Amino acid sequence: MKVLGICGSLRKASINRMALHAAQALAPAGMQIDIADISEIPLYNEDVHAAGLPPSVQAFRAAIKAADALLIVSPEYNFSIPGVLKNAIDWASRPPEQPFDGKPTAIMGASPGQVGTARMQYHLRQTLLFLNTQTVVKPEVFINMASGKFNAQGELTDEGTKKVIADLLLSLEKTALRPR
Amino acid sequence: MKVLGICGSLRKASINRMALHAAQALAPAGMQIDIADISEIPLYNEDVHAAGLPPSVQAFRAAIKAADALLIVSPEYNFSIPGVLKNAIDWASRPPEQPFDGKPTAIMGASPGQVGTARMQYHLRQTLLFLNTQTVVKPEVFINMASGKFNAQGELTDEGTKKVIADLLLSLEKTALRPR
Amino acid sequence: MKVLGICGSLRKASINRMALHAAQALAPAGMQIDIADISEIPLYNEDVHAAGLPPSVQAFRAAIKAADALLIVSPEYNFSIPGVLKNAIDWASRPPEQPFDGKPTAIMGASPGQVGTARMQYHLRQTLLFLNTQTVVKPEVFINMASGKFNAQGELTDEGTKKVIADLLLSLEKTALRPR
Amino acid sequence: MKVLGICGSLRKASINRMALHAAQALAPAGMQIDIADISEIPLYNEDVHAAGLPPSVQAFRAAIKAADALLIVSPEYNFSIPGVLKNAIDWASRPPEQPFDGKPTAIMGASPGQVGTARMQYHLRQTLLFLNTQTVVKPEVFINMASGKFNAQGELTDEGTKKVIADLLLSLEKTALRPR
Repeated sequence: MKVLGICGSLRKASINRMALHAAQALAPAGMQIDIADISEIPLYNEDVHAAGLPPSVQAFRAAIKAADALLIVSPEYNFSIPGVLKNAIDWASRPPEQPFDGKPTAIMGASPGQVGTARMQYHLRQTLLFLNTQTVVKPEVFINMASGKFNAQGELTDEGTKKVIADLLLSLEKTALRPR
Repeated sequence: MKVLGICGSLRKASINRMALHAAQALAPAGMQIDIADISEIPLYNEDVHAAGLPPSVQAFRAAIKAADALLIVSPEYNFSIPGVLKNAIDWASRPPEQPFDGKPTAIMGASPGQVGTARMQYHLRQTLLFLNTQTVVKPEVFINMASGKFNAQGELTDEGTKKVIADLLLSLEKTALRPR
Repeated sequence: MKVLGICGSLRKASINRMALHAAQALAPAGMQIDIADISEIPLYNEDVHAAGLPPSVQAFRAAIKAADALLIVSPEYNFSIPGVLKNAIDWASRPPEQPFDGKPTAIMGASPGQVGTARMQYHLRQTLLFLNTQTVVKPEVFINMASGKFNAQGELTDEGTKKVIADLLLSLEKTALRPR
Repeated sequence: MKVLGICGSLRKASINRMALHAAQALAPAGMQIDIADISEIPLYNEDVHAAGLPPSVQAFRAAIKAADALLIVSPEYNFSIPGVLKNAIDWASRPPEQPFDGKPTAIMGASPGQVGTARMQYHLRQTLLFLNTQTVVKPEVFINMASGKFNAQGELTDEGTKKVIADLLLSLEKTALRPR
């Protein structure tokens, strides 16, 4: 099973990127998680779109289309979805084809604070309604107080968090294997 | 009173840009609405930020700071805030200063469909909670079935919509004049 | 297939009750929609609960448990879920068993205004996340400007609305028949 | 300054009731917080309403009207507002008069889990938009892991929580004193 990981932060030392790397290591047997590159996607502009899809957008759409499932791992910015992530989704979802349609999708997020990206995740779930993904409901993965859960090498050390990420990936696998 | 208008769409012929132009014409005496340029703002990246604010972001922050009030006019993309608009907000809100703090702010949106950007507006209101703006509560301006409300020159022709935009601007003015 | 219809309004002449009756008539062959009675459910109080489930709550839980699927039809009160409906859900969802778990569920709503209960529906979808229902994603059924869509006998006369309700019921049936 | 406290739980030993009692003790000089009784309010039904407001609803509306400000303290049920609280609001907000209009209002909530009623609070904020209250934006008070923050006598012992409740009450006072 090929899963496309999408990180909502472009920062190299992003704690959400670390969480995505942790998910790669925790994936069940037979699941491979590759990471999309959304750093080159331009700002969405329908006038630009009318002239054709930029190469970075074409590549992102192809990666979504080729994947059996998606794993979105993102910080919360200003109580909602990061603009960077939303912009990538906005580009990828435009006609002629909509590659998110029916795609099994799991979400998780890490934050330094108490709430652990819950606000972002409910907004993202509403966007995924429009995109008609098959979104995993449980478990919810809110990695709060995240700075204390990774070591200096960026490795996840918190056992409870490892367990819930592994459970999320099993739910994603189950969703992807279920006949529709 | 100087109001900074922010349009969530970069498209030249955007119906939301038309709505923002309509607001300029409907502004009460003494209110001037200028329009921010967010088209050159790069994707937010904390590593880039660490090297200094890009000029386009500096200009946007300065424009927010100089304004007495904000008017955000935006489409709804994928049941939420356009990534383009959210990305501009994400950049503008980062330390050292947070120029949205306490700023009187009104929101409106236009869409071809029935719901008229309501989903986007509630998400944006949640983001504005974090930003601690003084957000105008009423009237809500949902310009639905918008294609029929503007003429071929892009001018707003629907009288009900003109009235509610004028009311929104009066509420924004009242909010800005109120002692804190 | 036995579907339990739940109406968020207790009013006899409720337009949402009319919409639920319309759904009964539009159900595909083999689907029967019965209507739950939530009018006698008391206010939720954990102290009362500790003394045992009231008979009205027992009956509601048994009806949910016996149903193959749920159809929730509700107005929007104060931009959210009616307290009456939420209170019934709160009672029904309490331990020892949680009868909503895994239950195929569709939602729709009618309102006199423009937005057609969209705000209520997104809040209800968030509640259904907790309840772990299998919630139908599409189509969304927002019956706006509803007074003009029913005749004096309370019958749905708008053909577009009939079509989308029929589509919703087909999606619900498909969800219920899908192996988990 | 007279503040009306409204508790979203009817349970006698409710941790939110304890938090409301803590607020009474932490109120600034000159602020008195009384607690509304919503336990006798029936389920909202427009047919019942047409026959007149029940005495319990009349009393609740009068208490809101007489108060200078409101403090809503509530648990989160099923990822949203408790039906009990929403039902009381639904009754209180119906015509002929709408006693919430313009009322300074603060919200807080306690929960045993990590997120501390955040989901409930954003839904409640959306309801308060409709009601046109002057809702305090900051600080947000999410009392998470609440069981460990009160002693066996139900008294709040966590100093950080005491501080943020006191700050919330100062913000509420400031909002109430501000000219409109």
